Amino acid sequence: MGRTSDAGSRILGAARSLIELRGYSALGVAEICKTAGVPKGSFYYFFDSKEALALAVIDEHWAAQQRDWERVLGSDDVPLQRLRRLFEETEAAQRAGQAACGTVSGCMFGNLTLELSNQTDAIRSRLQQIFDAQVDMVEGVITEALRQGAVSVAGPRAAARSVVAQLEGQVLFAKLYNNPARLEALWDDCLALLGAHPSRPAGGHAT
Amino acid sequence: MGRTSDAGSRILGAARSLIELRGYSALGVAEICKTAGVPKGSFYYFFDSKEALALAVIDEHWAAQQRDWERVLGSDDVPLQRLRRLFEETEAAQRAGQAACGTVSGCMFGNLTLELSNQTDAIRSRLQQIFDAQVDMVEGVITEALRQGAVSVAGPRAAARSVVAQLEGQVLFAKLYNNPARLEALWDDCLALLGAHPSRPAGGHAT
Repeated sequence: MGRTSDAGSRILGAARSLIELRGYSALGVAEICKTAGVPKGSFYYFFDSKEALALAVIDEHWAAQQRDWERVLGSDDVPLQRLRRLFEETEAAQRAGQAACGTVSGCMFGNLTLELSNQTDAIRSRLQQIFDAQVDMVEGVITEALRQGAVSVAGPRAAARSVVAQLEGQVLFAKLYNNPARLEALWDDCLALLGAHPSRPAGGHAT
Repeated sequence: MGRTSDAGSRILGAARSLIELRGYSALGVAEICKTAGVPKGSFYYFFDSKEALALAVIDEHWAAQQRDWERVLGSDDVPLQRLRRLFEETEAAQRAGQAACGTVSGCMFGNLTLELSNQTDAIRSRLQQIFDAQVDMVEGVITEALRQGAVSVAGPRAAARSVVAQLEGQVLFAKLYNNPARLEALWDDCLALLGAHPSRPAGGHAT
């Protein structure tokens, strides 16, 4: 039983690494099992399909990232500082990934969205739930900031979507140029998107 | 000779459609040739490798898009209106794609960046050149807008990168939610990123 569950988690770990390196389509079950060091025949004991394995990889990755986002965005800092901290941790994670494997791997959810969302409804639906949850969390922070007069946005939901879109867009460029420093722009971008740029009056209060 | 060049262009057309639908990794040379209606043996007469074919697809797509961007961003409109027109045309193109094949296919360059940039240096380098050229064009427009006092940004280059990142991020969400209306947010996002939001004074000239 201990051995059995170990094989399943080794398959999951191998799939996560390989998906980060090369995406989903390029992988085969045989390669995943070889990397995991488990017999190919045992794959279907744990997972019904490669798609089911991808969903398990997504769920595991999101469980960890959701805890990080909740910790940072639910902290006692003033709202905008929580967003700043989120960007700093995102940059640090991409730097750590680059140090470990030589390349910025980007956002697993963004990667799989552009690779797969038009091919499998199950994965599209799961990724939608994850990005909805990210937008929910950012919206909560923006709503608090709005109440405190720290930002000036017409609608916190649309503003949250724009902030998460900017995050995904800059992570895309960090990956393309293999340069995590691209993420340093996120803080100023976020302030601008929320109408809180230091060089401009925030919340409609002219200087 | 007529026939020969026709087979090459049919391979290119088939590869473009298949890459838009399913990405690069999921494709094989046999399937591309079958879709193109050419014998598999003829593939290597036209292309040295699948990677060479992908580069040709990228180049062909960029040649057309570059003409569109130059037409829109080089027009006689005031600078910000040119950016607005770019977003409107992007949304219209994604709507047309959705009407034709049922799904928003997104940005081919963004898709290939997240799928492939860490796997092939030749494709990474080509995609970098394309996004550099996009940022150059947007930077030119922002520089004009800055001279006219219509925007308020610290550096036009960084601002242009942020606008293109916002475009890629919102296109990612339009694809994920199969909803081109997500791109309607781009105009307000762009005004905010450039410090030109209608609800705030632009360029220091109060309304």
